[in-house]
Amino acid sequence: MSDVLICEVGPRDGLQNAKHLMPTAAKKRWISALAAAGLREIEVGSFVPAKLIPAMADTAEVVAHARTLSGVKVVALAPNLKGFERAVAAGAHKITFPVSASRRHSESNVRMSPGQMVEEVRRCAASRDPHGPEIEGAVSTAFGCTMQGEVPEDDVVRIAAALAEFCDCVALADTVGYANPAQVRRVFRRVRDEIGDRLEGAHFHNTRGLGLANALAAWDEGVRAFDSSMAGLGGCPFAPGASGNVITEDLVFMFESMGVRTGIDLEKLLAARATLIDGLPQEPVYGHTPLAGLPKGFRAAA
Amino acid sequence: MSDVLICEVGPRDGLQNAKHLMPTAAKKRWISALAAAGLREIEVGSFVPAKLIPAMADTAEVVAHARTLSGVKVVALAPNLKGFERAVAAGAHKITFPVSASRRHSESNVRMSPGQMVEEVRRCAASRDPHGPEIEGAVSTAFGCTMQGEVPEDDVVRIAAALAEFCDCVALADTVGYANPAQVRRVFRRVRDEIGDRLEGAHFHNTRGLGLANALAAWDEGVRAFDSSMAGLGGCPFAPGASGNVITEDLVFMFESMGVRTGIDLEKLLAARATLIDGLPQEPVYGHTPLAGLPKGFRAAA
Repeated sequence: MSDVLICEVGPRDGLQNAKHLMPTAAKKRWISALAAAGLREIEVGSFVPAKLIPAMADTAEVVAHARTLSGVKVVALAPNLKGFERAVAAGAHKITFPVSASRRHSESNVRMSPGQMVEEVRRCAASRDPHGPEIEGAVSTAFGCTMQGEVPEDDVVRIAAALAEFCDCVALADTVGYANPAQVRRVFRRVRDEIGDRLEGAHFHNTRGLGLANALAAWDEGVRAFDSSMAGLGGCPFAPGASGNVITEDLVFMFESMGVRTGIDLEKLLAARATLIDGLPQEPVYGHTPLAGLPKGFRAAA
Repeated sequence: MSDVLICEVGPRDGLQNAKHLMPTAAKKRWISALAAAGLREIEVGSFVPAKLIPAMADTAEVVAHARTLSGVKVVALAPNLKGFERAVAAGAHKITFPVSASRRHSESNVRMSPGQMVEEVRRCAASRDPHGPEIEGAVSTAFGCTMQGEVPEDDVVRIAAALAEFCDCVALADTVGYANPAQVRRVFRRVRDEIGDRLEGAHFHNTRGLGLANALAAWDEGVRAFDSSMAGLGGCPFAPGASGNVITEDLVFMFESMGVRTGIDLEKLLAARATLIDGLPQEPVYGHTPLAGLPKGFRAAA
């Protein structure tokens, strides 16, 4: 029973931006520990060319492992049709396509304009088997871009609406940590007005410390699915300055202390950090709640 | 022109908990730099026995300096009648009394029960000259206590109501970083229902990373005055585990990016960190916005 879905994206968004490689066996242990803590959706990797992002070279094997974990929806990122075909072959339950609302970021990231990328996702969706995986269109740089600066809200709404025509769900991502709570409320409301419940997820970075405040703002707007990354790993290698996903431990603590059930066992979640640290000992880890511990007399949401 | 008042408490809450002493001259430079950045309320020190907190021994001299800065409301903390008399003599414009809602914290901190402390503040208020300083009653550990655990909301409301009888304004403080946004909304609403506009300030710590989310929640409830500390210095030496005030730089960035005018110049604020670091070079400093910088094309609220 849960009131909010936390999708752990550390094995993808975190590791693809880490300075060191986590061995495949360690990834599997970490993902197993996350599942044991109650994570029900885990983005385990990305089907990008291994030459571009060596950390994601073992994604097919990691997907195969994650599929053995009962009750876990296994998510993988695909940047194009080729990645989509590999993700389908690997057996991902859900495939997420980032579609940047910033033309400059899109061209730098996937060498396609936002409109071309929408068409690429449309082709993937059209090629899909009726029993194939769920498809998510994630509007990235939806709140600003380190290359372009401001991203017009009209562009975000238009791309989200286009994706909603053929994606099972749409997410909005603050890829570079530019979002503020007022903007989050405004943009989520505008997109919700346009595509209704097809709008599902929110993906925030903590670059300027506003990650949890933005999550709260999205929650207030009815968002019930959030990406986050254990220990705040993450960023985007093609968007300079985009550091640190929202920290899963702090996000879960926030919701649970508010009485919002995440379905995640906080003690087990904090314990799972050890498997991350074992697998990537050189990488800095973040998190306020892990450092401070749970409050005296803390009770999880019930 | 501003929509929200940020009270910088670093020179008091930050320095009293720092591991090293900032020389008096450096304090003055830092406070001047804060004023130059647009801070209009600064809590510059605490009139506690110098033996207990050596970092506050020079508070009278620091108050005298701060009084020379045009347009700055100079705030000092007093824990009792003796401290109040010293604060009045020094010329503080506003004197804040912490009244802990946690019996255990109160007894450990000031060797008085919460009720005895309310009476102490009442005596101070009664002894006040009609042209004397403003008096604030700050309900501390209002959202939980590291010693006692849960602090009943009824206790918070009762103490706030008692203080409102003779204080110019009342604040609620999450002294140890236990608060969550749902609780913040609930408790501020309850206290507002009881004492109306006499309820003014919110003081949050970032111990579990929820500082800005709690500030946003309080803002939503109509709170328009917030304490914060440059570089996230701070805590409470008598409440173990109470680390880090909300970071001024990130709080100002949040509000300004939301279109809420703080009256503070963010560039000058970020530059003012240098005076803090010069004065206390051994102390760790925090802040996401200072590390990441302002977003490309960022515009302050206008």
